[in-house]
Amino acid sequence: MGETAALAMWMSWKCALAQLPYGGAKGGVAVDPSKLSRTELEAVSRRYMQEMIPFVGPHTDIMGPDMGTNEQIMAWFMDTYSVYKGYAVNEIVTGKPVAIGGTEGRREATGRGVVYLVERAMNMLKMNPEKCTAIVQGFGNVGSVAALSLGYKTGVKVTGISDHTAAIYNPKGIDVKAAEQHVLKKGTLRAFAQDHRVDPREFLTLPCDVLVPAAVDRVITGKNAGQLKCRILAEAANGPTTPDADLVLENRWDEIFVIPDILCNAGGVIVSYFEWVQGLQAFLWTEMEVTDKLFRILEHSFAQVIKRAKEHKISHRTAAMAIGVERVIKAKQVRGLFP
Amino acid sequence: MGETAALAMWMSWKCALAQLPYGGAKGGVAVDPSKLSRTELEAVSRRYMQEMIPFVGPHTDIMGPDMGTNEQIMAWFMDTYSVYKGYAVNEIVTGKPVAIGGTEGRREATGRGVVYLVERAMNMLKMNPEKCTAIVQGFGNVGSVAALSLGYKTGVKVTGISDHTAAIYNPKGIDVKAAEQHVLKKGTLRAFAQDHRVDPREFLTLPCDVLVPAAVDRVITGKNAGQLKCRILAEAANGPTTPDADLVLENRWDEIFVIPDILCNAGGVIVSYFEWVQGLQAFLWTEMEVTDKLFRILEHSFAQVIKRAKEHKISHRTAAMAIGVERVIKAKQVRGLFP
Amino acid sequence: MGETAALAMWMSWKCALAQLPYGGAKGGVAVDPSKLSRTELEAVSRRYMQEMIPFVGPHTDIMGPDMGTNEQIMAWFMDTYSVYKGYAVNEIVTGKPVAIGGTEGRREATGRGVVYLVERAMNMLKMNPEKCTAIVQGFGNVGSVAALSLGYKTGVKVTGISDHTAAIYNPKGIDVKAAEQHVLKKGTLRAFAQDHRVDPREFLTLPCDVLVPAAVDRVITGKNAGQLKCRILAEAANGPTTPDADLVLENRWDEIFVIPDILCNAGGVIVSYFEWVQGLQAFLWTEMEVTDKLFRILEHSFAQVIKRAKEHKISHRTAAMAIGVERVIKAKQVRGLFP
Amino acid sequence: MGETAALAMWMSWKCALAQLPYGGAKGGVAVDPSKLSRTELEAVSRRYMQEMIPFVGPHTDIMGPDMGTNEQIMAWFMDTYSVYKGYAVNEIVTGKPVAIGGTEGRREATGRGVVYLVERAMNMLKMNPEKCTAIVQGFGNVGSVAALSLGYKTGVKVTGISDHTAAIYNPKGIDVKAAEQHVLKKGTLRAFAQDHRVDPREFLTLPCDVLVPAAVDRVITGKNAGQLKCRILAEAANGPTTPDADLVLENRWDEIFVIPDILCNAGGVIVSYFEWVQGLQAFLWTEMEVTDKLFRILEHSFAQVIKRAKEHKISHRTAAMAIGVERVIKAKQVRGLFP
Amino acid sequence: MGETAALAMWMSWKCALAQLPYGGAKGGVAVDPSKLSRTELEAVSRRYMQEMIPFVGPHTDIMGPDMGTNEQIMAWFMDTYSVYKGYAVNEIVTGKPVAIGGTEGRREATGRGVVYLVERAMNMLKMNPEKCTAIVQGFGNVGSVAALSLGYKTGVKVTGISDHTAAIYNPKGIDVKAAEQHVLKKGTLRAFAQDHRVDPREFLTLPCDVLVPAAVDRVITGKNAGQLKCRILAEAANGPTTPDADLVLENRWDEIFVIPDILCNAGGVIVSYFEWVQGLQAFLWTEMEVTDKLFRILEHSFAQVIKRAKEHKISHRTAAMAIGVERVIKAKQVRGLFP
Amino acid sequence: MGETAALAMWMSWKCALAQLPYGGAKGGVAVDPSKLSRTELEAVSRRYMQEMIPFVGPHTDIMGPDMGTNEQIMAWFMDTYSVYKGYAVNEIVTGKPVAIGGTEGRREATGRGVVYLVERAMNMLKMNPEKCTAIVQGFGNVGSVAALSLGYKTGVKVTGISDHTAAIYNPKGIDVKAAEQHVLKKGTLRAFAQDHRVDPREFLTLPCDVLVPAAVDRVITGKNAGQLKCRILAEAANGPTTPDADLVLENRWDEIFVIPDILCNAGGVIVSYFEWVQGLQAFLWTEMEVTDKLFRILEHSFAQVIKRAKEHKISHRTAAMAIGVERVIKAKQVRGLFP
Repeated sequence: MGETAALAMWMSWKCALAQLPYGGAKGGVAVDPSKLSRTELEAVSRRYMQEMIPFVGPHTDIMGPDMGTNEQIMAWFMDTYSVYKGYAVNEIVTGKPVAIGGTEGRREATGRGVVYLVERAMNMLKMNPEKCTAIVQGFGNVGSVAALSLGYKTGVKVTGISDHTAAIYNPKGIDVKAAEQHVLKKGTLRAFAQDHRVDPREFLTLPCDVLVPAAVDRVITGKNAGQLKCRILAEAANGPTTPDADLVLENRWDEIFVIPDILCNAGGVIVSYFEWVQGLQAFLWTEMEVTDKLFRILEHSFAQVIKRAKEHKISHRTAAMAIGVERVIKAKQVRGLFP
Repeated sequence: MGETAALAMWMSWKCALAQLPYGGAKGGVAVDPSKLSRTELEAVSRRYMQEMIPFVGPHTDIMGPDMGTNEQIMAWFMDTYSVYKGYAVNEIVTGKPVAIGGTEGRREATGRGVVYLVERAMNMLKMNPEKCTAIVQGFGNVGSVAALSLGYKTGVKVTGISDHTAAIYNPKGIDVKAAEQHVLKKGTLRAFAQDHRVDPREFLTLPCDVLVPAAVDRVITGKNAGQLKCRILAEAANGPTTPDADLVLENRWDEIFVIPDILCNAGGVIVSYFEWVQGLQAFLWTEMEVTDKLFRILEHSFAQVIKRAKEHKISHRTAAMAIGVERVIKAKQVRGLFP
Repeated sequence: MGETAALAMWMSWKCALAQLPYGGAKGGVAVDPSKLSRTELEAVSRRYMQEMIPFVGPHTDIMGPDMGTNEQIMAWFMDTYSVYKGYAVNEIVTGKPVAIGGTEGRREATGRGVVYLVERAMNMLKMNPEKCTAIVQGFGNVGSVAALSLGYKTGVKVTGISDHTAAIYNPKGIDVKAAEQHVLKKGTLRAFAQDHRVDPREFLTLPCDVLVPAAVDRVITGKNAGQLKCRILAEAANGPTTPDADLVLENRWDEIFVIPDILCNAGGVIVSYFEWVQGLQAFLWTEMEVTDKLFRILEHSFAQVIKRAKEHKISHRTAAMAIGVERVIKAKQVRGLFP
Repeated sequence: MGETAALAMWMSWKCALAQLPYGGAKGGVAVDPSKLSRTELEAVSRRYMQEMIPFVGPHTDIMGPDMGTNEQIMAWFMDTYSVYKGYAVNEIVTGKPVAIGGTEGRREATGRGVVYLVERAMNMLKMNPEKCTAIVQGFGNVGSVAALSLGYKTGVKVTGISDHTAAIYNPKGIDVKAAEQHVLKKGTLRAFAQDHRVDPREFLTLPCDVLVPAAVDRVITGKNAGQLKCRILAEAANGPTTPDADLVLENRWDEIFVIPDILCNAGGVIVSYFEWVQGLQAFLWTEMEVTDKLFRILEHSFAQVIKRAKEHKISHRTAAMAIGVERVIKAKQVRGLFP
Repeated sequence: MGETAALAMWMSWKCALAQLPYGGAKGGVAVDPSKLSRTELEAVSRRYMQEMIPFVGPHTDIMGPDMGTNEQIMAWFMDTYSVYKGYAVNEIVTGKPVAIGGTEGRREATGRGVVYLVERAMNMLKMNPEKCTAIVQGFGNVGSVAALSLGYKTGVKVTGISDHTAAIYNPKGIDVKAAEQHVLKKGTLRAFAQDHRVDPREFLTLPCDVLVPAAVDRVITGKNAGQLKCRILAEAANGPTTPDADLVLENRWDEIFVIPDILCNAGGVIVSYFEWVQGLQAFLWTEMEVTDKLFRILEHSFAQVIKRAKEHKISHRTAAMAIGVERVIKAKQVRGLFP
Repeated sequence: MGETAALAMWMSWKCALAQLPYGGAKGGVAVDPSKLSRTELEAVSRRYMQEMIPFVGPHTDIMGPDMGTNEQIMAWFMDTYSVYKGYAVNEIVTGKPVAIGGTEGRREATGRGVVYLVERAMNMLKMNPEKCTAIVQGFGNVGSVAALSLGYKTGVKVTGISDHTAAIYNPKGIDVKAAEQHVLKKGTLRAFAQDHRVDPREFLTLPCDVLVPAAVDRVITGKNAGQLKCRILAEAANGPTTPDADLVLENRWDEIFVIPDILCNAGGVIVSYFEWVQGLQAFLWTEMEVTDKLFRILEHSFAQVIKRAKEHKISHRTAAMAIGVERVIKAKQVRGLFP
């Protein structure tokens, strides 16, 4: 219960920072989906949606995927809700399969957003991407897209990638496309580039210009924060930095440029929002339109965070949070409390 | 009943091919509207809509014109539904008069789409429009727009036009604008260019580069299919080619490039869809925006049909159908059957 | 009651002229808001909305600010309605604070529209803005924006401004930005440019190229209409010209180019409409998009009014009214009367 | 408008006195129904109901007949509302034909209620009905039923009856059944018992024990109130007594026992209420059940009025009003004002 | 389709004769339920209800059991509908299990109604039940209850019973309770009272006072109608008499008193109606109340049929139909046709 | 949370035992109402109802008073809900003031039910009420009504009464009406019959025929259960007997006849149910009808509990629980689990 409530609150600030017309809510089922048959998974999904019907609606609260769910579950949610309502309500969920109104480019949205912000920061710090190196922790939807995009779109040399089976570091650069192919076939990075394996515990403190923790939370701690050797820290995961580490990073503010998670990985929820808007309008945008609008929002958020941080001499994280919280307060104030 | 059900199914594949978020449904009243007074026609229309209210809705099923109906009937439908609901619901019908939310350019949409696809095929076949001739059967909304547009926009020489009163063929080209003026005044082509009249039964087999059957169904049969002399057959009508004829055309695949009806005349339903979207968004597009978006969809469908036909070595018609049916299957699969 | 009904009808013609999909309605509370405490004002606002609930809705009738109301009251309306419905329905009101879905640039919309039309008229009359002078009566939302924009965007020399405390005239031009700063600090123009004070009764008849009455109604009367010395009369206020004056102006049609209020100040309701559309689509436009779309509509209305006036040899005002009324008639005719 | 509002308020007190769970509302159309064709009358009725749809509902406000309407109009109201809702909602109107859910005995309800209360008063005043005489003004639904019932059920000798064409007085008693048959055939009393015709202006002041004004309002005035010779005045009409007359009657309280209209003619609205309840329950009561329940309510109201009048030494009319008003106040107090 | 439509119409007349506030509708699934597993049966039932949701409702159309369905299926219907609506809507079906709001005595209602009407006819014909004999064809819900009740409640000697496996005739009387016990154990009458077996084809023409066909339709034909030896023919089944037979019976009107099916077996739908009313009122009646109200309605219908038949010198069947049809016409007339 | 959930479950079994068509639910606000001003209390009540609106409804879940609430709060609930819905929905709460649809006799319902069951038990045990004594613990709504009714209606001699300030015992009998008057004036029993004060700790073990714990829970414990000297233990309070005590009472089953709380104090919820039914039917029952129907239900429940206990040789408490739980199971089984 507590974790779910915390995630709901966190989502509120993230949406407010990106100026999406959303509050924040979270729900869950206490079950290990990997232990369910497909039939059981469908039954649980449909039952869950049926129980949620009084609480959700295209204009009330909508659903989107998170840990342990996928496109198929979103499709079942959508179908269950639609059968109850008597017509196809595809705006009730985001993260749907494209076949029933999902958005092209949604899977890649978070990773692309991360890279957009890294480029933006490099530009601001007058760093030349062609001469920079990057280490990316995690090789799932976010990490792999970020690594590929950093290398092939931005021109940065990716010198480190990792997943839960292996950490690979090659100062001469890694062939990320080969890594991606490898993972598509084998499932993990385990057997990839075995002669460049490093100790995962030291992975984050290897020298690089851009460090992208894109795996799990709490990986940058009070212990290793002082040893980070990056110039830009792009928090692609949720909560990769502990409060202890944060104190260290605040002191190193002139050495390490932090892009806090609430800003850095907002691409996912922003494109979910776009999917909802397209559903409401019953008209799909092209993938290019989606990406343009995504970058427009990220640009705006980034600029505001930097401005606020400078003006108030606070960290980027504090600035981002402050903007989010203030927006919620402002909206609550003008609406008032009734009854 | 059977015909209505068949048309409903046909509409499903057409919408799926164009990726419109629609299924397919059809309804009708067994009455000859030409024998009704205006008062009776209004009464029938309003009663029909009233009976349909539980089955339709802006998000459930919407209505559009087909044989025997017109803009005025759509307006009565819209008004009846709106009075029942208590506010103006103009997204409940398409094909409305512009005065109450209809779309500019809807009448011309099918004809323009046909010509867009003909141009596209010419381009692909490396035919020079300026050196091509076209015969267009039918001179209603679709045929006349197609003939005019082929001549004045594309540069093709229109050598044959016809309606149910006359078939005209002039190898030197026909003045289509004059024909249009003639029809506006006299109602039919009967007295137009009388010295170029030909036997309607031989009309379709006259030599031309582009043949556009835009009148009724079943005009290209097992008998005449072998004698067609066109390079491109653009099926602007619904079902102009019989199954027998189709077998012949499949064998002549390298001689005659078929643009099957499900693709060729999709312009009408696509712009109806646009009218609905504009109604939902409560914001009208300009005629240029409408046309651009129409061509974008047709382009996409055309490319997919050609690609599929090549890859699977099947006819364009089979490819178009296969794409449509597969999309419906795919959507049904991800949604599942419930309860 | 009578005034409210008249305003409702007036709004119908204005919306019809701009081709907004709206009818016209007005409501009010007989109270002097300046005598209420904030708590009382909130109570009155919420009660009023609660009483209106059966009559309004995002697709039925929506609310917007008028005399004696402001953004905060719109926010209370929105909140009250939303609490009743159980979710945030921000499309129920326009003129909301930006924090809860209001539109950037709404405040300036009327003034900007006035200036757009003045430029358009100048262009048509082949007047060079750089060589023109303007007098603007009223310095509220509309007048101040118009004066600023005429001066700094269009290049016209503003020689007269006024409010209810002072009328200022300087043939060498007035520093409008300074005036704006003055009003922001002091509330009125009272102490501004005191050595250029003129008699308010003679203010409108001072020589100028463009006269913009942007204060209250009935200021151009049968008495002073004959003495106006402007080339363009842009009616930014509602009803600044009395019927008597109108007769005079009709006779002076070749001397004074009238932009009638129904056209001239339509910017406000047009941007309100945009705010509603954005709410329905759950997607905000940038301020630039808002302004572009506003000008596109004004351009279209202006052209139609001019064309109609020329063809029928009637005044601009009559032409504007005729177009509006005809559109309403046309829509009523195609819908019919039912039951 | 004023009259309609007054009737609405009056209905509130009447319902409150009878403890019906109703407030009071009235509506009307400014038209003389006798000048409309049946088709026009149906059109007006259906349009009126359609306009009222947002304001009425089985649980909001329901409709019933009053001046100028009849069972057929109620049926049209019911049908129009039902078609809008999609199913038969017969609880939306009372006074319907029995064929579509009307209540047996509704037509006679007011007259029967009057007689029940007259009996109750006689009993209280220890008057022997067999030895009493009654004069009944008016011979419509209320007057004729009252006269018949007084004579044949209660045993009172009816010595006077009248309508707008004739006033008949026979101290030996009138054959009321014959009068009823006469009216059924001829429409009025004009040619009935012509040898017992009296001056209508003196009719009400003829000697009798029970006087029942059952025609129009304002017939007992400051002029004739002092000359009434009855022991019981049963106000079957609405407002038969003017305020002037009321002052006289208050002084004659020990001579004349007034049953005030708000109590006396409540039978009609009470049985309308029963019709509504039966509609809600989808189960019809027998005529006997209807009559029993009617008398139970009248008994209760009568007893409370008498008790209140005695305790506070006020007139029956004042007592009846006070009880009604107090009930409304009490309900408003416990509910409070919100928002 | 045709059969279902005919049953729907038939139901309309039956309901109208009994003055139930219902029209008539029927639906079905083309499936043999005996070949489905319980899981499949539940799936079909729930899917059927889900498809019917737009067409049914507690105030629109409700469902009840008929051939091939039972209490459990009604429970699934109720549950499916209720889950869709979000609360228990038990008034959506009749024939529910008592555990979820079904009515005590519903199963026995038809049989009891048959016997009530037989008693009523005997009384009218001055027959002494104690001296009468009865033959009952069919031993399902209706036949067994009728046989038991005729014997133990009315005192008639039951001399014949049958089902699809056996026809038993004993002029000394049959132990019906023993037969009921036998069927409860063995399922059919096959092995019961084997020494009294008769040829089923002659069963209906055996001598008796009361003949109750309570099995299937079309058993009394043009062939055997002339040989019936009963005094009272109580049509407990639906349509047991063919049109041919009916002509014969009309000629034998003074020999055989027919209680036509539309009247005779109305007990079932009447108690279904009661179940619905109790659901709407959320208050259950006792079994005694149910039976009393049932007999009250049957008495009223019977009396009207007899009266109409006498007055118009028509058969009971024609009289019953005429009353039903007239009521529908009357209701349609007062409501009118709209739009 | 836990306590609220437990109470909800307990309510389910109680309703099931009484065969009310209810499940069980409970809600609450963590606030001490005695510390709130009336304005604050109203604000809390209205806000609470507003938050509950998605979860309640006349057919979904309704509200009734419990600890810390009263009639006025129910009126605020009703008003808040009604304003949201737009019409008076008085069936949304029970325990309302009579002025807005509350039920006469609701306050006394629990006490009267207790006494009805005591009489029933005495009758079964062949005890002569005139020769019996009773001790009643608690003198609130339940205890005082029970004591008065035992004495004045049933003829039992009340020898003990108590509240939280005093325990009074007089073997010659107590003047309960005097006690009631005393409490109305002074608020408590503190100064009443001071010469008959006893130690509260010994109060329950004083000799008597009928012991009625009508105060708080857990007063009969493992310690004092063995010393009870009553023949009938009527549990008017909720949970007056601890599980320990219950084991003792089960062993003394032939000495002490227990009427378990779930049955004994069901009168309150039963009359709440009646209030709801009357609201749905929009028709009020007389107090006598209410009481009759209440006793009918209690009689039925009592008989079933006794029968079950005998057949299964279990305690009354276990029997009552078993019946309740089984009914819920049975209903769940026939409905099934969907989806």
